[in-house]
Parts: sequence; C-alpha cells; structure tokens
Amino acid sequence: MATKWGILSTSKISHDFVLALETLSAEDHKVVAVAAKDKSRAKDFADNFKIPSYYGSYEELGNDANVDVVYIGALNHQHYSLTKLMLESGKHVLCEKPFCINAKQLDELIKLSKTKQLFLMEAMWSRFTPAYQKVVEEVQNGTIGTVLHVQANLGIQISNIERIWKKEVGGGSILDLGVYTLHLIDTILGPGKPVSVKSKGTLNRYGTDENMSAILEYPEGKIAVISSHTKVEMDNSAYIHGTKGTIKIHQPFHASKEVTVNNTKFTFEQPVTRKPTVFPRSVQLRYEIDHVRHCLKKDLIESPVVTLNNSYTIQEIMDQLRNQIGVHFVEDNDSSM
Amino acid sequence: MATKWGILSTSKISHDFVLALETLSAEDHKVVAVAAKDKSRAKDFADNFKIPSYYGSYEELGNDANVDVVYIGALNHQHYSLTKLMLESGKHVLCEKPFCINAKQLDELIKLSKTKQLFLMEAMWSRFTPAYQKVVEEVQNGTIGTVLHVQANLGIQISNIERIWKKEVGGGSILDLGVYTLHLIDTILGPGKPVSVKSKGTLNRYGTDENMSAILEYPEGKIAVISSHTKVEMDNSAYIHGTKGTIKIHQPFHASKEVTVNNTKFTFEQPVTRKPTVFPRSVQLRYEIDHVRHCLKKDLIESPVVTLNNSYTIQEIMDQLRNQIGVHFVEDNDSSM
Repeated sequence: MATKWGILSTSKISHDFVLALETLSAEDHKVVAVAAKDKSRAKDFADNFKIPSYYGSYEELGNDANVDVVYIGALNHQHYSLTKLMLESGKHVLCEKPFCINAKQLDELIKLSKTKQLFLMEAMWSRFTPAYQKVVEEVQNGTIGTVLHVQANLGIQISNIERIWKKEVGGGSILDLGVYTLHLIDTILGPGKPVSVKSKGTLNRYGTDENMSAILEYPEGKIAVISSHTKVEMDNSAYIHGTKGTIKIHQPFHASKEVTVNNTKFTFEQPVTRKPTVFPRSVQLRYEIDHVRHCLKKDLIESPVVTLNNSYTIQEIMDQLRNQIGVHFVEDNDSSM
Repeated sequence: MATKWGILSTSKISHDFVLALETLSAEDHKVVAVAAKDKSRAKDFADNFKIPSYYGSYEELGNDANVDVVYIGALNHQHYSLTKLMLESGKHVLCEKPFCINAKQLDELIKLSKTKQLFLMEAMWSRFTPAYQKVVEEVQNGTIGTVLHVQANLGIQISNIERIWKKEVGGGSILDLGVYTLHLIDTILGPGKPVSVKSKGTLNRYGTDENMSAILEYPEGKIAVISSHTKVEMDNSAYIHGTKGTIKIHQPFHASKEVTVNNTKFTFEQPVTRKPTVFPRSVQLRYEIDHVRHCLKKDLIESPVVTLNNSYTIQEIMDQLRNQIGVHFVEDNDSSM
C-alpha cells in the first residue's frame, strides 16, 4: 500500500519535493493532500500535481484522515509550530532543514514525537544520496585510513533573497547552508558534539549572518573546517582527508553525484524529473522520501540514518555558532515558547 | 655583471636552489661559494655544482669578498643567527622561510639590515611565480569582483621527518607549511594584520603542532580560512572567492603552474632543471632568485614584492597561532637573544 503524503506549504522546495516523489513508484508513494495559508495557491499546486485534496489552512491537513505523513516545506521559523501542530494532529512528520530555529524548540518536538509515538525526521536529504552512501562505505572500510580532517564549504549567492537576510523568518547562512556542512561532519566525525567550536561570521544590517566559518575539533585531534556564505559562490566540494588518502565529494557536496576516492571517480546518475526542479539536483530528495516509507513500514518513530540525536547535536552546534557570531532570534528568548 | 651568490648550508633546499639558479642566464647569476659545518659536505656540494670556493665554517663564507649575497638554506632555528652573522659580515641576505622562529628575532634582523643598509628578504618564492603574478593581476583588475573569502590548505605527510617534529630545530606545521598559506592571504587580503585570529591545532608529544587550522578576519568582513597538516595529504588547491567569481590556484598552490580564473584555465610551463630537484616544482625558486638580482641592481635594501613588513606581519601571526595552540619555543623566552 502506498505511503500517503500531505504537503504543507506550496513553497519552491515543496514543488521540488513532489517532482522528486514522482520519480518513485506510484504504488509506493502518493501525494493525497496539500495545504497553504492561501487556498488558491493550494488549489494551483494540487492542479499542477493532480493532488486530490487541497486546503486553505494547516489544521485541515492535520484533520485529513487519509494523510499518513506530512512533509513540511514552509519557512524556517514555521518549522517548530507546524511540526508541533502536525504531531498533535497525529501525523508522522518529515520537516525541512534546518529542523528548528534552536535546540530548545527541537527538544520540545522530540519529546512530543516520543509521547505521541509518531515518526519525526529532519529532511536532511544529503545523508540518503548514493554519493553519501558511497562515502560512508569507503570511510567505514578504511580505504583512506584514519580520517583526521574534513572540509566543507557551501557558498551560494543568495544574500538578496528575503528569507536569507530576514531575521523574523530565521534567516542567515548558518541555518540555510551551514546546516549541510554540519550534517556532513556529523556523518563522518560524529555522532556527538565537537570538543570545541571556534567560529567567525559577518552580520548583515538585519542581524543575521551573511557568512560563517568555523573550526570544529572532535576527539583525538580530528578537525573539521566549514564555511557557509551567501555573498559569494564558493567551491562547494567537500574533502575528507585520512592517513591513507582523500575522498572528494564533488560540488555541490550536499547534492553531489560524483565522489572521488583517492584517484578513482564514481558517478551516480539520477532519474530525471518530469519538469525542471527549482533548485538544482532536487531529484535527490527521492532517496529520503523512500527512506521515510521504509521507516514507517517498520513502525519506526525515528530514522536510523538521520536520528533525532544527530539533528539535535547539529541544532546545538548552530546555537553555539550563532552565539559566537552574535545572531539572536526572538525564539532564543526564554519566553518565546 | 653577474650576481655572485654564496650558499649557506648544503641542505636539500640549497641543492634545489642551485639547480633552479642554473636555469637562469650564467651571465646574470653565479654561485661562487658554499659553506657547511662539515667541510667535506661543502666540498661535495661544490664539486657537484662546480662552485669555485667551499668552506667548513660560515664565518669564512662571510669573509669571502667575492660573495655579494648569501642564500640561507639552513634549518629554521638557525635562520636568525646565520642571517645576523651574514649581515654583520656585510652580505646581502636571502633567507629561507620561515624567516625566523618568532617576530622578536625578525625585528632584530630588520633593524640590523637597515643599520647596515644591506638587502634582506624572506625566500617566499611563491610570491614571484607566474601563477601568483597572474592571480594578483586578476584580483587587481577586479575580474572576480570584491574578494570576500580566501581558502588555502597545505597538508603534506611529513610528520615522520625529524625537522618537522623536533622542537629544537623550529618544527611544526605552522612554520613549515602554514607560512605559505599566510603569505597567500597577505598577498590577497593584506598587507597588514588581521582583525582577529581564531585557530586550533594538535600537538605531537614533542610539543610542536602536527596540524593547524585558522580563521583570520580582515577588515570589511573578509575572511581567510587556512589549514596546515603534517599527517595527511590534503587537497592543496587555494581558492579566492569574490563577488563576481573565483580564482583557483591548482595544487600545490604554493608552487602551482595552473590558475583557473572563473572558468578559464591558465597554465605556466617552467624550464626543466638539469637534474631532478628534491622537492617538487623547486625550479620555480628561479623567479625569486632573479628578483633579488633586480633589487640589488637597483640598490634596494628591501623587496617591493615581499617586503620586510609583509614578513614581519606573518611572523607575528605565526606567534599568535603558536600561542593559541600552545607551541612554545625556547627562542620565545625573553632571555633567549
């Protein structure tokens, strides 16, 4: 029986999510409903993707008994409240990255998912791609010896996009781009918090971070060096340096289709979506979508690949980075929840 | 008339230096003497390169009236005392990198060179290579807009080499490898000290740094991220990210022969030395050698490309990095000079 998806918000990433879902078997995955604050936008989205139900409120989606699991593709600052609403409505949830604005919010959601015994996962699609699977396999096999240094950059010129610079929607390079570098590091050097974090970033006039660079130290002198940037296009390859060699994840590392292990290059071709995606390589969202189905079929309430602890650790590091750089959200105030 | 060189120490880098010098016109450059503590080693070196004079003491080289300028290719901890000896003997000096163990030593040498009105320069060969010339030209032309981020790694597996781990000879990744990354940053974002420096490194059991990573902030939110490593071979390309594009200096960036400006690759072929050099790409030492001649012909006591201020700034940053990481040399004690 197909996994029945509800789509929350008609954002660009929701658009790409459904296109990626369509590349999977229709017997396994069905989008059965979509909700937006503006009902006409929900209708347009539903028409575009032939989705049977559409709603002009999120509550209605939560009340749709036909929906198994909700994908939340709304803006960063809405992730906490919408995930909470969906869990309270009895829905499993796959929530876009960054999971929450801060660790405090995520802690609430994790507790709620456990109380409700509902599946909850951060939509960190990179960790399910064939490229990442290859990297993990090679690192575990010891192909490059002991990993001592990981480097990842994600710099994309998006500082002119409102959601990136606006504080009230959870903007900044860390939450939008840095989160990918942190998930890579957690994949290779984690799980668990780094021993130390040293960072530097530049604030824009709205008080969010235009860029961030950080050195994270893990046990045994292992080092990760990351940068996120919204004003320059960087070389977004990632490098994993070990005592016996190097793995390069070709750019953009978070959605790569090429991995070079020492001098051997591996290419992973992906299916093509029926229409172009808004963001490059979004077709790779399909791997996390299929993973969610497998988790639900096993009655898991947590993914074994992107665990809630993985996400919580990363949320804590992002709090630490923001604190060092001086990015403060209203959600960080004690009275905000 | 040819510039008459004296070579101080018969080290591997001195060997490469003379091979690189031989690729220049013999009418412009002549090696007229070599000195080593062990006279037989000086003789072998002189025989190998057909050098007319050889000495078993450095003082004798200083007293050789035929020598215009001395190249110091000795171990790091000897740079200060030998440069001092040569300046006091009235010789111009080109001293291998890192110039000194700390800024205090270099300050002494700079003062002495000014008192004596003798030429003094750190042998930072990278800054004279065609690749660097191209990079500087493109950055100055604004090809990649405003530079906001520079990244450079130099990771080479050399932690088993005595001079790298031994404290008493000025070992560690910062002085041997990190110095190159700092000169690149100074070339692009300098001159002048960074606003802030945040670093992390791992010490070996001898108390020198096996590796270092640092974030250096320059005015106007410009960021440099560097790593040096002695236990892993890194991707040693360097990237200069600007608002209108990227310059990649292909690995190894400190002795590169390829530069990609946005999507256009430029290759700089070099002459071939008559015998293989010990270190890869050492033929490029020829550019700094020729630069010294041009400075001497103009009676300069300081290079306009690698100024004494450039070197002093970098020496100060290295002191700062060592201090943060916990590498302390006996030369750092007040009573050491």
